Amino acid sequence: MSEESSELLCPEALEARLRAIGAERYHDKHPFHKLLHGGQLDKGQVQAWVLNRYCYQSAIPRKDAALISRVHDVELRREWRRRIVDHDGDSDGDSGIERWLILAEGVGLDRDYVSSTRGALAATKFAVEAYVRFVREKSLLEAIASSLTELFAPAIHRERIAGLLAHYDFADDRTLSYFTKRLDQAPRDVAFGLDYVLREARTPERQRGVIDALYFKTDVLWAQLDALYHAYVEPGHIPPGAFDPALVDPGTDPGADPGAET
Amino acid sequence: MSEESSELLCPEALEARLRAIGAERYHDKHPFHKLLHGGQLDKGQVQAWVLNRYCYQSAIPRKDAALISRVHDVELRREWRRRIVDHDGDSDGDSGIERWLILAEGVGLDRDYVSSTRGALAATKFAVEAYVRFVREKSLLEAIASSLTELFAPAIHRERIAGLLAHYDFADDRTLSYFTKRLDQAPRDVAFGLDYVLREARTPERQRGVIDALYFKTDVLWAQLDALYHAYVEPGHIPPGAFDPALVDPGTDPGADPGAET
Repeated sequence: MSEESSELLCPEALEARLRAIGAERYHDKHPFHKLLHGGQLDKGQVQAWVLNRYCYQSAIPRKDAALISRVHDVELRREWRRRIVDHDGDSDGDSGIERWLILAEGVGLDRDYVSSTRGALAATKFAVEAYVRFVREKSLLEAIASSLTELFAPAIHRERIAGLLAHYDFADDRTLSYFTKRLDQAPRDVAFGLDYVLREARTPERQRGVIDALYFKTDVLWAQLDALYHAYVEPGHIPPGAFDPALVDPGTDPGADPGAET
Repeated sequence: MSEESSELLCPEALEARLRAIGAERYHDKHPFHKLLHGGQLDKGQVQAWVLNRYCYQSAIPRKDAALISRVHDVELRREWRRRIVDHDGDSDGDSGIERWLILAEGVGLDRDYVSSTRGALAATKFAVEAYVRFVREKSLLEAIASSLTELFAPAIHRERIAGLLAHYDFADDRTLSYFTKRLDQAPRDVAFGLDYVLREARTPERQRGVIDALYFKTDVLWAQLDALYHAYVEPGHIPPGAFDPALVDPGTDPGADPGAET
């Protein structure tokens, strides 16, 4: 995953390098998303995507707080705090996590079952927690660089909104409000992050760290879809304890522990 | 420091035990604070206190973000986020850190010198960073318990406001606004923290963790005053590179590195 080159890139070249990673590896290229956006998934498969993706959505404030916990500059902390507010809100009705739960209910899932994360795939949780740990443990520059998949998010959100509206009964303004809201939020966030990274990555080593951080993050997203594809698109591979659309009420499965605080 | 007893305390007894730690070890008992509040410190000694204590004040948002980064419950994250807002504010003019810098300017210090933390004692920084690390690494219950020195803060703030107003020319409503503001904020915060701890510490082991966390935190505060006393009350002990009131412009000392992001 790491780059061989030790050449110092100018900011424009570094930005082009980062955008090329998105063009090659962002999860809009994943076959699971192609099936989702093309209307080729059944209800249970969409449910599996929504409840697994909840793990990622709900971990974002922890990831962003981990980043803030390492920042000595009050302005940078304030800027980054906005991301926590976007996801956690100031009250239940106004948060990205709540908007995701509205989607979950829209596809017929029980919100408590979803928020327990009991039915999510272990691979999803491992990938998500790897992201939280990366931000906690790597350099601040790498942590910020790992957020730059937001560069590619508006395109996938627009494609997703159009695809879901065209193909699925559950899709409407209310159930898709998470994505429409992110169309406003993500460009604002990523402009800050990209500016920071281009300004601070001024040695070949730091540029390599930034590039590898973005590779890592695309892996985090891709791995979640691989796990979904294997479990819910290829027949017969749902792991023990994971959400099973064939069960009448998967929410009553007393299986896995919802996961303790880390 | 750890407790021998393995008996389970009822919530009232646990609260009494925690309050007893404050009565015995909170830093209002420290001789440096007695000198400060009694008007027995000269300008340079007050300056040393203000600029060292800045390290603690400015680390609090990192500490609180570290705590949030470990919380899976959105309501608890939101509750705790208020502490970051109290200290970092939404803009420069409205934050605990800014109010502390107003105090720093009021005692004749340069705000950039203070916020660089260049003149602060190494012992101060070690104690403060030990607190940040404790919250990052210990159990969530212990991390929350370590905030409970706030139980004892309103009394010391009232004593401090009265003592500083009575004895020092720099003291007025503006320079002491940090403390007056905390009179409102701390009781609100500590009511939440105490309730959480009494509710969650339901085994002897967890109660012992809570008690030890409060011991640890009183040590963090006490150690900072020990270092101040040794360096600035006992003659001849200012360490190399630390703030020296005898220098005309200590802010120009090119000495120690201000400390990189951790």
